[in-house]
Amino acid sequence: MGTRGRRRAGSPDARRAILDAARAAFARDGYNASLRGIARAAGVDPALVHHYFPERSRLFMEAVYGGTDGPAMDPAVLDEVRRLPAARQGAALVRVFVTQWDRMGHDRFSALLRAALTNESMVARVRELVVGALVTPLVAKVAPDRVRLRSQLVAGHLVGLGMTRWVARLDAVAAASPEELAIAVGPVIQHYLTGDLGEPSDPSAAEADEPRVGERSGE
Amino acid sequence: MGTRGRRRAGSPDARRAILDAARAAFARDGYNASLRGIARAAGVDPALVHHYFPERSRLFMEAVYGGTDGPAMDPAVLDEVRRLPAARQGAALVRVFVTQWDRMGHDRFSALLRAALTNESMVARVRELVVGALVTPLVAKVAPDRVRLRSQLVAGHLVGLGMTRWVARLDAVAAASPEELAIAVGPVIQHYLTGDLGEPSDPSAAEADEPRVGERSGE
Repeated sequence: MGTRGRRRAGSPDARRAILDAARAAFARDGYNASLRGIARAAGVDPALVHHYFPERSRLFMEAVYGGTDGPAMDPAVLDEVRRLPAARQGAALVRVFVTQWDRMGHDRFSALLRAALTNESMVARVRELVVGALVTPLVAKVAPDRVRLRSQLVAGHLVGLGMTRWVARLDAVAAASPEELAIAVGPVIQHYLTGDLGEPSDPSAAEADEPRVGERSGE
Repeated sequence: MGTRGRRRAGSPDARRAILDAARAAFARDGYNASLRGIARAAGVDPALVHHYFPERSRLFMEAVYGGTDGPAMDPAVLDEVRRLPAARQGAALVRVFVTQWDRMGHDRFSALLRAALTNESMVARVRELVVGALVTPLVAKVAPDRVRLRSQLVAGHLVGLGMTRWVARLDAVAAASPEELAIAVGPVIQHYLTGDLGEPSDPSAAEADEPRVGERSGE
């Protein structure tokens, strides 16, 4: 969305132009993409980028995850999943995840994952966002036990599926329809949501009832 | 493994020092880590790095994946998995994957994944290595159908599990023992190996019998 003239603060589309330019730059150059370059591509003064987005992380999250056309995971869609009978939530979650990120585009998924891998504070943010805000509330409603382990296995599997489809673009997974993936992968997510995961081998390490997402394991 | 004096070509430990320095640099700085910096940390002339490893990709793969203490996935261990009854291979594969990468260290896993995300030729190499060389031969022996889809779902799930444990380090997955993960995740891998994945929705897009790993989906 490059333009010739410079947009000014308050120009109705300046903020949107910055987000579009940022999305392209982050997807291409990773989390440390040049803010000056983003301003140039958006046709605005660099100070305006800083005015709208005082922190790089906020610009990144809105451009790549939130975007200009709504959040990647529309909370209303997740509410629909949540209202389904527990036994149907696995396939529904896969269908929603694949459909929404197919629509968002593989560049965004790659950019989010790259940022999460190259920047420690982004790891924490993505962890909080994906596991804490999206997956855990859903899992907590149906899980018979071990909410944290279940949430983390679900999140890890969806991210792995996304890598396969949108980053590595392995042909059979990339060519499958959302419905085919819901059928093939749904039972797996269902297993993580409500199936028997076995007993913790060390009862003293058993997790608290309250999910505590976002903490680091001791190391 | 920084040293004072310069090691010379033919010095028995020069090659190993280069690999150790490269592993640290790739884990810290990503795929485009400075080769000059690696030579400095290894105490060798930069020309010697080039002598042993004419291509960056070869240095990377040996340092990060192959390493100085053997390949990440010892082929002999995979042979053992292959000799098990089909119904026990899911859990065994998880156990082997988790145990071996725990031993290799999370830095290597992160470095491999970061490289795969930041460099297109590395995406292809990692795809070939993980899916083509390791997963597909194993899956092909037991899969009733759809070898490519099964291989790719297995590979994607293992990578996703690895991200959860070694990169994002989500606490419940990071704290689980390899045996706990074999119990919780094994049935999932088993489902992808031998379970019913449903029918392809578009029969004309059904995959050929022969696995063709490493191809890109058309886009």
